[in-house]
Amino acid sequence: MKKFFVMAIVLLSTVPVIAQDSILIRKIYDEALTNGQAYNNLRYLCKNIGPRLSGSVNAEKAVRWGKKMMEDYAFDKVYLQEVMVPHWVRGAREEAYILDGKKRIPVPIAAIGMSVATPKAGISANIVEVRSIKELETLGEKIIKGKIVFFNRQFDPRFIETGDGYGEAGDQRFNGPAEAARYGAVGVIVRSLTPNIDDHPHTGSTLVSTGAKAVPAACISTRAANKLSRMLKLRKLPQVKLWFKQNCQILPEVLSYNVIGEITGTEHPEKIITVGGHLDSWDLAEGAHDDGTGIVQSAEALRIFKTLNYRPKNTIRAVFFMNEENGHRGGLKYAEDALKKKEDHIAAIESDYGGFTPRGFTFDGLSPAQLKDINRKWKPLLEPYYADRLTAGFSGTDIEPLRDSVPSIVLIGFLPDSQRYFDIHHTPADVFENVNKRELELGAAGIASLIYLIDQHGLK
Amino acid sequence: MKKFFVMAIVLLSTVPVIAQDSILIRKIYDEALTNGQAYNNLRYLCKNIGPRLSGSVNAEKAVRWGKKMMEDYAFDKVYLQEVMVPHWVRGAREEAYILDGKKRIPVPIAAIGMSVATPKAGISANIVEVRSIKELETLGEKIIKGKIVFFNRQFDPRFIETGDGYGEAGDQRFNGPAEAARYGAVGVIVRSLTPNIDDHPHTGSTLVSTGAKAVPAACISTRAANKLSRMLKLRKLPQVKLWFKQNCQILPEVLSYNVIGEITGTEHPEKIITVGGHLDSWDLAEGAHDDGTGIVQSAEALRIFKTLNYRPKNTIRAVFFMNEENGHRGGLKYAEDALKKKEDHIAAIESDYGGFTPRGFTFDGLSPAQLKDINRKWKPLLEPYYADRLTAGFSGTDIEPLRDSVPSIVLIGFLPDSQRYFDIHHTPADVFENVNKRELELGAAGIASLIYLIDQHGLK
Repeated sequence: MKKFFVMAIVLLSTVPVIAQDSILIRKIYDEALTNGQAYNNLRYLCKNIGPRLSGSVNAEKAVRWGKKMMEDYAFDKVYLQEVMVPHWVRGAREEAYILDGKKRIPVPIAAIGMSVATPKAGISANIVEVRSIKELETLGEKIIKGKIVFFNRQFDPRFIETGDGYGEAGDQRFNGPAEAARYGAVGVIVRSLTPNIDDHPHTGSTLVSTGAKAVPAACISTRAANKLSRMLKLRKLPQVKLWFKQNCQILPEVLSYNVIGEITGTEHPEKIITVGGHLDSWDLAEGAHDDGTGIVQSAEALRIFKTLNYRPKNTIRAVFFMNEENGHRGGLKYAEDALKKKEDHIAAIESDYGGFTPRGFTFDGLSPAQLKDINRKWKPLLEPYYADRLTAGFSGTDIEPLRDSVPSIVLIGFLPDSQRYFDIHHTPADVFENVNKRELELGAAGIASLIYLIDQHGLK
Repeated sequence: MKKFFVMAIVLLSTVPVIAQDSILIRKIYDEALTNGQAYNNLRYLCKNIGPRLSGSVNAEKAVRWGKKMMEDYAFDKVYLQEVMVPHWVRGAREEAYILDGKKRIPVPIAAIGMSVATPKAGISANIVEVRSIKELETLGEKIIKGKIVFFNRQFDPRFIETGDGYGEAGDQRFNGPAEAARYGAVGVIVRSLTPNIDDHPHTGSTLVSTGAKAVPAACISTRAANKLSRMLKLRKLPQVKLWFKQNCQILPEVLSYNVIGEITGTEHPEKIITVGGHLDSWDLAEGAHDDGTGIVQSAEALRIFKTLNYRPKNTIRAVFFMNEENGHRGGLKYAEDALKKKEDHIAAIESDYGGFTPRGFTFDGLSPAQLKDINRKWKPLLEPYYADRLTAGFSGTDIEPLRDSVPSIVLIGFLPDSQRYFDIHHTPADVFENVNKRELELGAAGIASLIYLIDQHGLK
């Protein structure tokens, strides 16, 4: 009889909860798919504001737009968080040619963010092609000095998760320029970080050189990288040179803002679940997938809660971080303030991997047993929506610094399908037209559903 | 000791097999992602051949191209299977206007495949808007006779699997025209089958009327459908009319072909695993996702086996079916011949839901216990590739008739992500540019991996 009683308790306590969860999640998806506002908000951000690199006029427009949107949604609190950001500008568009004897072959090129300019007449030099930073060491200053270093290790297309390929090839752009400068290179060109063979230069950021004079650094398209590599193999070395010119500048830092909106928790207003993306974008396009989609999805999650009249137990906070692309200052400032105010964050979720069809979420801060438990309880609820891959993994650049501020926090990355991300990443093709409405909406609904589950049941 | 012995057996018998499977699947993916030919083959089919509705010159070009491709890959057998197909032609492009008093508002329209033409001057009539075939019965001949019936039930965007939304709304196009004809309608227009609000008419096939005079039927864009519906609500009925004109024709049937290529099994050459898609396409675009991707993925699966020097135990057969779009004759003929020849099919797999990022496979012909077992064994192998959703479900139109010919067969549908499918389905936007290379390749590799597993371990 006792055994029976225990079973009845179990049925009473878990089954109705799951049914209730399942019903609310269905309502979240219905709202996102029938009355969703994420897509129209993204259109505005992309088409009426556009590129919005930190420190630019457009970045400030985006701050005002984001604040107004959250005020229009009547979130309980909407405010700005001050943050000083770098102000790098590209200047006039870059130019580059392969000089093959008397022939000049144009090369699609883009200065790497935070890089310095070339002299006004550009740089012309012989090329040293390498596959890795380690190879610089092997070659040494004798070979590298006075040359343009050409990092040409391929983005491995065999990674199923394209972010892993980006991670594997990324040191060439992040660290390569500063490392090459140490060996006396006069310039650096980097094969664009994409598994595709295409004609876009894919920009991005690089570490600013320390301990050596900064050298101009730029990305070239993968097709041009292949062509240049072939030519270097076929021709005698001195015959092939590269000329390139760029006009970028680092201007004085600028006061900017993270944009924050909250729905105050009914039971634990002091406990926070943060959801965010970054408001800044590269200057080459509209920052649609990177990271306009993360911004509008974060706001949409809160809007859906309000529309469904769901009053969360904990405070749900949407954060539009500034300066993810070339400094991470917004994320750092948010974490710094969280520490100062001793804010109690349960979890932070970031959407910064494109607005593609959802696959699930990656968790950082759960033990294997806790993650297994989350899978057992929540996978069945998210499976009908194809958002049920709940694994350990990286969360997001903007929320990562929170780990030091709130040791108990669980950091979560929204995991969309990654196959198309590096088609458009940091290129002129990252425009609104390349975002699919349903994929974006399903992402917003998936994120809102996860927030709902965390709010109701906690994570640990 | 006995217990230990049993464990050792288990380790010897299952772990090495799984390791071997895992290694071969990895090789399949590496080949598809680094040396894949599916994308280039698709480019040729789309750009050098193009639209290829059954009976057209292009359909015959596609047959010759498909046969040559499989011959060039040196499959063990390559042959054609004769099949008579309908030959419907659109003729000059359709025109339509809403007539609102003296105003003429143009409407994007496309004749529904297998429909008849209007008189040369077109048809002009008042409109009866309905949501369902059942509503026709309620209204009756008195109201419908002499009118244009306008089917305007929305494709429900709340279905996560968009194919379910298509299934739910599809009777309006499949059956609506013939049903409306029974009540004396003079023409039928159908809201395009897409959850989007866009400006494409989405064509497709309809059942040819029986028992009533066939009436001209066409699809209009969803935006135009919304506009027309609003006008019908706002204006007095006789004020708003529709005029449309189409010039389509059903010509005499044409001899065409399924294209078949095989790798002969080393142990059971008489047992067949079929993989296919359909070679015909609608006439409005290039039939890229529908179903060029299915064709090139099927050939790619066999090419990968040959390249990896994998000799299957059973015969693996790629079939490019003809006439899926407006008659299903290829699939019917294939099943008829399989019955005649008493061919022993283990399984048939169809890829006809777009070349998007893979989600998994749907199985028809396994018991729940068998499906559970397949999940237990194979899900871990397919999970790293995000192709591990193995559920019961519909397989494909071309392979469905096989169920009657081979009662033991397992029918399998390749399940890609469906979110973008009805953006382009049966519209001018179904072009090569809307197919992503990696997504296509991952699909080919996923299909090849499943064939490998079936070949090695069977399904039941």
